[in-house]
Amino acid sequence: MSSNKHLDFIENDLNELKEKGLYKNIKTIESPQGAWVNIKGKKVLNFCSNNYLGMANHPRVTDAAKNAIKDYGVGPGAVRTIAGDMDIHQKLEKKLAEFKGVEAALSVQSGFKANLSAIPSLVGKGDTIISDALNHASIIDGSRLSRAEIKVYSHNDVNELEEILKQNPPGKKLIITDGVFSMDGDIAPLPEIVELAEKYGAMTLVDDAHGEGVLGDSGKGIVDHFGLHGRVDVEVGTFSKALGVMGGCIAGSKQIVEYIKQKARPFTFSSALTVPDTAATLEAINILSESDELVLKLWDNAEYFKQGVRDLGLDTGGSETPITPVMIGDAKDATTFSERLFKEDVFAQAIGFPLVPQGQARIRAMISAAHSKEDLDFALDKFAKVGKEMNLI
Amino acid sequence: MSSNKHLDFIENDLNELKEKGLYKNIKTIESPQGAWVNIKGKKVLNFCSNNYLGMANHPRVTDAAKNAIKDYGVGPGAVRTIAGDMDIHQKLEKKLAEFKGVEAALSVQSGFKANLSAIPSLVGKGDTIISDALNHASIIDGSRLSRAEIKVYSHNDVNELEEILKQNPPGKKLIITDGVFSMDGDIAPLPEIVELAEKYGAMTLVDDAHGEGVLGDSGKGIVDHFGLHGRVDVEVGTFSKALGVMGGCIAGSKQIVEYIKQKARPFTFSSALTVPDTAATLEAINILSESDELVLKLWDNAEYFKQGVRDLGLDTGGSETPITPVMIGDAKDATTFSERLFKEDVFAQAIGFPLVPQGQARIRAMISAAHSKEDLDFALDKFAKVGKEMNLI
Repeated sequence: MSSNKHLDFIENDLNELKEKGLYKNIKTIESPQGAWVNIKGKKVLNFCSNNYLGMANHPRVTDAAKNAIKDYGVGPGAVRTIAGDMDIHQKLEKKLAEFKGVEAALSVQSGFKANLSAIPSLVGKGDTIISDALNHASIIDGSRLSRAEIKVYSHNDVNELEEILKQNPPGKKLIITDGVFSMDGDIAPLPEIVELAEKYGAMTLVDDAHGEGVLGDSGKGIVDHFGLHGRVDVEVGTFSKALGVMGGCIAGSKQIVEYIKQKARPFTFSSALTVPDTAATLEAINILSESDELVLKLWDNAEYFKQGVRDLGLDTGGSETPITPVMIGDAKDATTFSERLFKEDVFAQAIGFPLVPQGQARIRAMISAAHSKEDLDFALDKFAKVGKEMNLI
Repeated sequence: MSSNKHLDFIENDLNELKEKGLYKNIKTIESPQGAWVNIKGKKVLNFCSNNYLGMANHPRVTDAAKNAIKDYGVGPGAVRTIAGDMDIHQKLEKKLAEFKGVEAALSVQSGFKANLSAIPSLVGKGDTIISDALNHASIIDGSRLSRAEIKVYSHNDVNELEEILKQNPPGKKLIITDGVFSMDGDIAPLPEIVELAEKYGAMTLVDDAHGEGVLGDSGKGIVDHFGLHGRVDVEVGTFSKALGVMGGCIAGSKQIVEYIKQKARPFTFSSALTVPDTAATLEAINILSESDELVLKLWDNAEYFKQGVRDLGLDTGGSETPITPVMIGDAKDATTFSERLFKEDVFAQAIGFPLVPQGQARIRAMISAAHSKEDLDFALDKFAKVGKEMNLI
């Protein structure tokens, strides 16, 4: 056995995380994802998942996965460029492009990988990325890997974005923004961003992780929501949220998608999506293409719950989407609120510093089309009960 | 519509790739992965996949995926740290740790992500990574993301590795090597590397992507192969090769795995593995835990094929594993050889510069337990036929 002195830093660092209250204690789900889930043998109302449309356990989605396994097995066996490209990947990509109203789409294993694929393909050393301050970790890591210079503008601040563009930073310019921001549920001012990009000759990339299946006609996403078809260079997406599976997507013109396919390291050096994941995602898009029923139900539920929360005298912040922050303020209070809700069979996450600014801690309620009105009433009752107990309302 | 001048570089770059012969034309599989696959409506013998043990379409693996979908749906619905941690993920990780003979294991969506998770968690700015020159792209990208200084030693050169360690480079030191190198099929000198790490107080990380399911007792991997249990800090693995699915693994002591779980950005900010992928991987490990039959068949096939190739008068390079480079020399000859094989119903990839040095182009034959002796004889016949036609033998 080797001496473990070289690992002493680990215990120190872990203790520090615990002292700072940053140590993650993970809750384990013992059932399918749905409106209700089992945790520690108890059924709780699920306000934590990104399963916006209930696709994760939708009978058509699960059937599609099982049937595809019969026809193709489970594993793709290789990276796409060697021998892992299967015709179902192509079918999925064709359908994705059709659904989003773009020429082409490429699938990778996660939304995270989609950013790691797209960003370093488009810009490199000597180029400039102009990035919203609240962009997702995968955008930050993709940007770092690109070696381009990264300039950050304040969240959703198009004036500051224009100031940066006016200075004509070096090389190719790529503006990157999340479509919907996951902690507040607010939407990027994409029309203004696109206009600035056109004015200053910059490329645009929008990460629509929380917009797909949520915004736009039948959940086509933020580009459709704002009527910006053909004016955003790259749409990055995920299959793990409204589509209920796992995987990532890069969509745009035929040329730009082909370019990313040729250049992206995570595409070239990492396995294709599995058969069940690919087939399940394809079926989720089929469902969305056929009917907007689930998307309408999602929005109806979101409006109902938000109004209910506001009627209790609580603040839902700047949310414009089904992501519903219920503002509490103090981080410890938010944690207590979440724990009390869990005792009352409502599973809703507390979010505090450093994920959101000090003093803006909140409960983040993720509303889904899988919830019934009764579920939402149940939750509102519990929010009222706990809020009163804690003298917040 | 915006002007597309800002995208002019794309056409130029794509043309350049084509001129350099680096443009990828991808073949699409129209069947499950197996000894034979369908491409363009034709059945070809598959020498391209990483499906070493035939797990990708193994009946127990496909059944496990289908049954898990019945019980848990398809999607995990969230990242692990929020609400995507399911008990089947825990079961898989427990089994993985048991199989590998380590205290703990963590699953992520791909081997690529496993390196992006492990490396930047263990070292950062002011630290030093010491890396084999032929390490995989995911190790390179994980190392870049860590911001540690990267020092590269010549492939498998432990003397050069020691020279670097002797200079006592700054901060924490992490030695990283692939276990099996994918282009040559040679094995890292892990015992010597571990001794040096112990002597100089460095951490060790081995990426066992092509060793799991291949090396060691019942395919337990390179650490077992060399009897180094407890002496390698982190084993990174993949579910996409011998295990036949997709996903990644980080294995080691309880403490180090917990540390990476707390720190890793791709773990914190990217979805959990899906239900079918998790269940399929678990079943593949169950199969390996119960019997070494498939691993023995893989090695028997590999030895048989290599001997056959050598009997033809062709060179199999420095391979010590089922990865069988059939050395051709000139890159254009290798491409012609591969194309001629494909016409003869053998799908085997040509690999040239820049993936391997100039003048060392080869056909890379990936041998699997799924192949029968008849399959291998069929291939040897075709290698002989094409080799003679091309005056190589």
